[in-house]
Parts: sequence; structure tokens; C-alpha cells
Amino acid sequence: MAENPIRFGIVGCAEIARKVARAINSAPNSAVTAVASRSLDKALNFAAVNGLPETVKVYGSYNQILDDPCVDAVYMPLPTSLHRRWAILAAEKKKHILLEKPTALDVEELDQILDACESNGVQFMDGSMWLHHPRTAKMEEIISDPKLFGYVNYIHSSSTTSATKQFLEEDIRVKPDLDALGALGDLAWYCIGALLWAKNYELPIQVRALPDVTKNSAGVILSCTASLHWGKSSKETTATIHCSFLSHTSMDITITGTHGSVNVYDFIIPYQETSASFDITLGAKFAELHIGWNTKPEEVEVANEIPQEVLMIAEFSRLVQVIRTTGCCPDSKWPQISRKTQLVMDAVKKSIDTDCRPVYL
Amino acid sequence: MAENPIRFGIVGCAEIARKVARAINSAPNSAVTAVASRSLDKALNFAAVNGLPETVKVYGSYNQILDDPCVDAVYMPLPTSLHRRWAILAAEKKKHILLEKPTALDVEELDQILDACESNGVQFMDGSMWLHHPRTAKMEEIISDPKLFGYVNYIHSSSTTSATKQFLEEDIRVKPDLDALGALGDLAWYCIGALLWAKNYELPIQVRALPDVTKNSAGVILSCTASLHWGKSSKETTATIHCSFLSHTSMDITITGTHGSVNVYDFIIPYQETSASFDITLGAKFAELHIGWNTKPEEVEVANEIPQEVLMIAEFSRLVQVIRTTGCCPDSKWPQISRKTQLVMDAVKKSIDTDCRPVYL
Repeated sequence: MAENPIRFGIVGCAEIARKVARAINSAPNSAVTAVASRSLDKALNFAAVNGLPETVKVYGSYNQILDDPCVDAVYMPLPTSLHRRWAILAAEKKKHILLEKPTALDVEELDQILDACESNGVQFMDGSMWLHHPRTAKMEEIISDPKLFGYVNYIHSSSTTSATKQFLEEDIRVKPDLDALGALGDLAWYCIGALLWAKNYELPIQVRALPDVTKNSAGVILSCTASLHWGKSSKETTATIHCSFLSHTSMDITITGTHGSVNVYDFIIPYQETSASFDITLGAKFAELHIGWNTKPEEVEVANEIPQEVLMIAEFSRLVQVIRTTGCCPDSKWPQISRKTQLVMDAVKKSIDTDCRPVYL
Repeated sequence: MAENPIRFGIVGCAEIARKVARAINSAPNSAVTAVASRSLDKALNFAAVNGLPETVKVYGSYNQILDDPCVDAVYMPLPTSLHRRWAILAAEKKKHILLEKPTALDVEELDQILDACESNGVQFMDGSMWLHHPRTAKMEEIISDPKLFGYVNYIHSSSTTSATKQFLEEDIRVKPDLDALGALGDLAWYCIGALLWAKNYELPIQVRALPDVTKNSAGVILSCTASLHWGKSSKETTATIHCSFLSHTSMDITITGTHGSVNVYDFIIPYQETSASFDITLGAKFAELHIGWNTKPEEVEVANEIPQEVLMIAEFSRLVQVIRTTGCCPDSKWPQISRKTQLVMDAVKKSIDTDCRPVYL
């Protein structure tokens, strides 16, 4: 354990907080210091079930944890509609913020959160764990090499999960007053993030929903598809994304360049904790008479001793340490990634709301 | 070799005819009897290069081969714009027809060809080899099993190839007077066929091109993307397709159902001649704490002693034998598949031509 680890308060005891609490206590530069829920019983139960030490403080209100001077940073897995209120308050209390995705209901809300972080000198990052996996860095190295991979022409990404009847009736992600963005916010956040990542965070010029949106009776999106377009003339890229609570689990990205293609089926949560792979095909041509190929996809295995969520916490805590020791402004890379993802998500939502009209960014 | 094999005439010496000539001579119930090109030299050269026996007749005109009473069936790999003229003439001369894809410039033309085949009692089939591979049958068995795979919610298919500078300047597939449909006709034919196959040949209700169409200076499509939609309310299916002459080689289908998903990267031309595989994932869930999955994709290997193009020829020849021995009408399954594929391709084209408006079928 590093000296003076970043002391985390967990604000909200959602299911995902169990994984992140474990990650905070596994990272070398952080530790869980406090846990809060709206109900003290729920917070106590969370601490017990997750084997948190007795030294961890347990609060029955979010205000209390934000007032605790021993809390340096908060992890906030609250329903999206509560993000603005609590993230802004946390920033005002000088807490660094790791915020679950989707970061906000729209980019206006997110901008208020980011402004509060900036003016209070606190670090912001969203909870997209996969961006911290070494596999992601390895794929990035390949697709961004113009000699090897060429220009990225086409990207497809889908994120689907077969929700239970109970989820579709009760989960916060299908409730208009809690997570109004539904599958778009919960799942397409990753797909949009993957496209932006593959395009080195260049924003698309046009976003358009496809006319297959499925909503529940309260108007929350359960399934949708969209297309995105970058550039003009010879440097065009097209992408399609699909998200759904109504399909079998999938987490795919396919990236097709002029010289190669990359496929991965488990980009958000790797099949296994300790290693992950992707398939790459380079310079494929057909054999004589077109009776086969000259090559097959190669599986590239990337070992990671440290799980991606621990890498995320370690990176966040490292940035907080930098602010603490140097007094510098917070890093802007991660807030910018969140903001662009939210901006594109807003565009998909706007297209859905306007009968699939194209939205220009 | 079966008694009285079906005697094929090859009408046009395109590159693909080399593969098909080999297949005709490999199938147990067929043989190449004659070859024709517009130039006798080209036909002689084709016969020599492909090691065809000296008994094979060589013609310097298409009319001659169609007048040869020893020719039972023709394989016709001509530029699309010539299909109507020569296929109708072949039907009138009572030749069964294996026609390269795309079958025609539009469904009106194809209907004229199919009418000619029907009224002359000759068999029609298009040259989609992959539909005859046993892997395709194995995948079909899985995705059409509602208990195992559930309902097919989403399908994505892409077919891309990185054309050479020479191809983009000289190939018939980029010439408006020869193959006016470009990549849509040459590559998306397979993607559209794959979606229809996965939907058991139910037509989509809506087809829409996405605004990323790339054309050459003569207006021929080099790259495009489209979305397709089936059904209403809870029984909806969405599909996206992408085709391009400007990207690295890919031939993907991903089929996502409620209980499982299937992925294949080489559906049109398998990597190897003698076996092919696909990946299937069934009942995937996340492990405790969402730190992995309970399952990984399983690779299903399907051996095929006989290459898919030979299986296509054998099936076509079998149908011709049935007509010959029983006097029955030609089989309608394959012409219907071609017609539906052409109909959907027309809809994509129409959407492209009307600034991506939705086209309803």
C-alpha cells in the first residue's frame, strides 16, 4: 500500500459498488474509508456482505459522507437522475469524483458537474472500466498504426443483455424518474465510447437513430440502433451501434480498416479476469481460384495481472495524488472523454425523439 | 460419375468461371461440355488454362453455345447488364440456368428472366455458393430453434474487400454500363441473402440506406451501409449491412437472439475448403461481481468433404435431373430466394437514390 492512499467514500450501495469496493481495496493507492446509503441498514449490510473492515465508517445519508473530512474521493453509482445534485455537492465539498455511467441525463447536466469539478479543483472520471484494460491499449496501438491497419472505414459495436422479467419491471434502469435513458444510457454508453475511442475521440459529424426503437410503457428505451458518420470524401468512417435489454448478452466491436480488421466479443467485461484476447486479420486475400483465404484471424492474448476495474481505480487515484502533491489542476483527458460520449448519446436520443432525423454535431 | 450427367455450357470466361468449371467437373452429376466467350481466342485460352478435356467444345460467341443441343444447362458469369438478354435467350433455347449474382439490375429484369425460365420449364438458381455449405445448414438448425436460440432480434452482416487501384479503374464491377450496382450488387448481395436466410426468407417491412454512400466518378456504388426492419411490437428484428470495395476483406455475420448469439467471419468463402466453423454463445451471464462470464463462445467445426461450390452444382444438377426424369415443373425454392434478395437490394438502391428515405416493402 502506498503512503497516504486515496480515501474513498462509496455514495450509494448499488450492485456494481460491490465490484468497485473490491477494486478500491485492491488498488495500491486507495482504500474504502466510508460507505453511505439513504438507509443506514442498507449501508451496514453492504459493509458486512462485502467484508469491509470495521474501521470503515457507515452512513445513513449522502450528506453525512460528503461532510466527512476523511473522505478524499467519492465513487458514485447513483441513478442517473441524481447525478447532477450529488456530484455537484461532492465537488463543492472538494471530493474527487468517480461517477458511474451514464454520467448525466444530458450534456447540459454533465457540463454543470464538470464546471463544479473544475472550479473546485477536483478530478472527474466516469466508470468505463474497459478503457483501462491493457487489451484496449494493445488494440489501440494496432488500429492507430496507418501502415499496419490503414484508415478505419467502418466500426460496429453492440451491447446487449437479456434482462429478466424482474429487471424489466423493477430495475432503476427502466424507471423514467431514475435512469430515463434506459438501454441507451446503460449499454450504448459503451458502444459510443468504443467508436469514439477507435476514432481517437474525433466527434462524428452526423448521428442518426434507426427506426427500431423499443420503449417500455413508461417511455424508457429498452432497445435501439443508430448510425454515426465521420468526415467527408475519401476520409469517411461509418459506424453502427446496437443496444438492447431484450437480447442475449453481447459486447462486440468490429473495426474494419483498409489493411486489416479487429474483432472482439467481450470488450466491456472480458470473459476472464486475468487475460483477454481479440482477433486480428491483416492483409487478407483469397487463395488461387477463390477457394479459401491466404490467412486466418490471429487471436492476440493480452495478460493482465490486475483486473481492469483495479487499473481504473489506480489511474484515478494516481491523478488525485498528482493534484494533492503538486497542486496542479485536474487532468482533463477523462472528463473530455465522458463529455464527448455524453454529447453523442444526446444526439442519438435527439434523433430518436425526432422520428430518426439526422442530428449534426 | 452418374449416368447422363448434366452437360454444362459456360457462357463467359470471367475469373469466377474457373472455380465453377472445376466444380462442375468435380460434382458427380455434371460435366463441362462447352465454353463460350465473345472471342474464340479467349475461350480457347480458358479451356487450356483450366485443363478442360479436348472433347469440350469451344465457341467464339454466346449464340453458338446456346444453339448447341448437347448443352443441357448454362453457367452464366456475365456482367449484370447482359443477364436479361442472355438468360432469357438461354431459357428460350431450353437451357437450365445457373446465373451469377447479382441476378439482374432490378427485380423487373429478374422477373422477366424467371418468367422465361418458368414458361420454358427450365431450372433457375443463382451462384450463392455459401447457402449450400453444411455449415450454413448447421447454423440454420441452431438459430431456428426457438427453445435453444430464442427469437432473432438483431443481425449484422458485412462484406468488404480492399480493391486494387487496377480493379477500381478497370473491373467490370465499377463500370456503369456493365455492373451498375457496384459493391451493392457484388458484395451486399451476400449480406442481404444472409439476413433473409436468418429470417427464414421473411421480407423486411422497411429498408433504409445510411448516408455514407461512396460512388466513383461514374456514379457506381463503391461502399454503402443500410438498415432493415422486420415486424412490429414484440416480434421485431433489426439488421444492419455494410459493403465496400474500399476496406480490408471481411465476410461477417452476427446473429443475436434472445437466448444466444452466433458469429462467423468467413461466411461467403470459408478460410479453408474442407472445413469451416462458427462461434456460438448460449445462455451467457456474468459471473458473481460481474468480473467475468459464465461461458465463452464455443467454436463449432463443420467438416465438408465436398467444397460448397461443388455442392451448389450438385444440387442444381439434381434438380435438372428431376425435371428430366419426371417431367415436373422446375423447383421454385431457389428462384424465390434470388427474387427476394433482388427485391431487398432494389429497396436499398431506391433508398440511396432518394437521399436515404425509408423504402417500405
